[in-house]
Amino acid sequence: MNAPIPEPDALDLGLPAPFQDTALPAEVRIHEVGPRDGLQNESALVPVEVKAEFIGRLAAAGLRTVETTSFVHPKWVPQLADAEELVPRLAGLPDRHPGLRLPVLVPNERGLERALAHGITDIAVFASATETFARRNLNRSADGAMAMFLPVVRKATEAGLRVRGYLSMCFGDPWEGPVPHSQVIDFGVRLLEMGCDQLSLGDTIGVATPAQVTALLDGFARAGVPVGRLAVHFHDTYGQALSNTLSALRSGITTVDASAGGLGGCPYAKSATGNLATEDLVWMLHGLGVRTGVDLRELVATSAWMAQRLGRPSPSRTVQALTGSRP
Amino acid sequence: MNAPIPEPDALDLGLPAPFQDTALPAEVRIHEVGPRDGLQNESALVPVEVKAEFIGRLAAAGLRTVETTSFVHPKWVPQLADAEELVPRLAGLPDRHPGLRLPVLVPNERGLERALAHGITDIAVFASATETFARRNLNRSADGAMAMFLPVVRKATEAGLRVRGYLSMCFGDPWEGPVPHSQVIDFGVRLLEMGCDQLSLGDTIGVATPAQVTALLDGFARAGVPVGRLAVHFHDTYGQALSNTLSALRSGITTVDASAGGLGGCPYAKSATGNLATEDLVWMLHGLGVRTGVDLRELVATSAWMAQRLGRPSPSRTVQALTGSRP
Repeated sequence: MNAPIPEPDALDLGLPAPFQDTALPAEVRIHEVGPRDGLQNESALVPVEVKAEFIGRLAAAGLRTVETTSFVHPKWVPQLADAEELVPRLAGLPDRHPGLRLPVLVPNERGLERALAHGITDIAVFASATETFARRNLNRSADGAMAMFLPVVRKATEAGLRVRGYLSMCFGDPWEGPVPHSQVIDFGVRLLEMGCDQLSLGDTIGVATPAQVTALLDGFARAGVPVGRLAVHFHDTYGQALSNTLSALRSGITTVDASAGGLGGCPYAKSATGNLATEDLVWMLHGLGVRTGVDLRELVATSAWMAQRLGRPSPSRTVQALTGSRP
Repeated sequence: MNAPIPEPDALDLGLPAPFQDTALPAEVRIHEVGPRDGLQNESALVPVEVKAEFIGRLAAAGLRTVETTSFVHPKWVPQLADAEELVPRLAGLPDRHPGLRLPVLVPNERGLERALAHGITDIAVFASATETFARRNLNRSADGAMAMFLPVVRKATEAGLRVRGYLSMCFGDPWEGPVPHSQVIDFGVRLLEMGCDQLSLGDTIGVATPAQVTALLDGFARAGVPVGRLAVHFHDTYGQALSNTLSALRSGITTVDASAGGLGGCPYAKSATGNLATEDLVWMLHGLGVRTGVDLRELVATSAWMAQRLGRPSPSRTVQALTGSRP
């Protein structure tokens, strides 16, 4: 009784059946971070032609924002050292998939120059809501990091680029503990005021719970920031990413970051901070009747293919369930 | 930049910081199913003394309902064939932990006789909301299963036992697809009317999404069933278990089933239907300011210890994060 059951493919049965929640947005734009944030945090080095195929398949599966790489110094992130080779290989994609955006992370002015030279139209900068993480990750104070980004964002917007600002450690910091919301809102507003079009609020260590998400988003609303300029970026370190996303959707968030197959949880790091898997997010959104434009079956096939390239199973529950793979 | 960070123990930093949601219940009773539902679906056979220690440690970690085993015929569930030996080893626990309940699953009248002979005070029966699963799992029609349980529940309540009724496949069936809520409510009400004190609504294949949970619980409310008589039992097959739990809490549910360490996802079955991990649930509840009585650190240590006994890492994200283990 209650033994494991060999079951048919849930998608063939029309599951999840949509049960609309009218309090939620009708449509969500998924900001796919697998090729950049995901592969950057995998130990394996992926050949450039595999990356290009990965991004092409993600676009073909219906994702309309795919962050592709970073114009960081190759010494710091060897996983993304091939940015210069990768970007030209993606040139035909936006024509094939109208509306497709392919943002690139840019750490500083030198990175921006490289992005402009390649005709990039969407960039992102990566700031910190806490002092300790700024010093550890960006090698400067949090204020110093803001000062570094100011000319990058100004020049980018003057050149007509769209700029996303990532703000990390918004819900807790591994050294400082709880992070005051006033501090998060202060840094976030500064990024928006210097010209960022969108602000992505990151739970970099995955500690947030749903009411905290509501409270922080309420704080941004009180500070006069329209919810349409905000995105959320949850990590599944403690299994909370999807519940937190649900909470954010209830606050009106319509842009959600996720990583195909849950890429990015380095299997060798203690407390690996895996990204929310795009497939698990899509399962929930489609079940809630929220449109994403994503073909879940194609996306799962893409993540299963990439997991083979990486030589380890995907941590996404949905990928595991629909492909029969288990870690 | 954004590389994996060796971080201090989140619990030492006071994370997750509680952010109360006043729309949620102040307290939740976790119905711990690891020793029964969990171990029943693991391929390894666990020695009886390890099971007894496991249950003792779960009680010491603050869990106040621990389903211990099943008085099923040993031929059907070899993992629980030692029920007769296990139960006497637990005799001292309720004295040490006031309020502790140790329910046992009982499949039929023969099972009830064995439970009564052992002085069991809490039992559970396991029914199906769909015809196909009843035939496959219980070897009778869904109505036939109800007829089988009627004398069991009657005799148990006459003997003063508390009876829980499990209803499986409430949110989707692997052969039938979507399950009409009217059908689920009909079977559920029959279980309550025959004398079950509590009804646990199972998403046996893990396909539900949050608005579906709200809709089904609304249906039970309209049918006149007090929400206090309902529990929810979510599986994490598609990563949805915790979001669905959040949704159920918003509908007033105060009893949630979970399995320590996420025990029960047989690693060899396609689409293994892993249980919601108790640790991931406790992380969310404590972050939401909901009392559970559970000491998360002790619980994590218990699940890590059991994972060693089973020879595989826990699938719980929280156990992985707090112990540095990864599958």
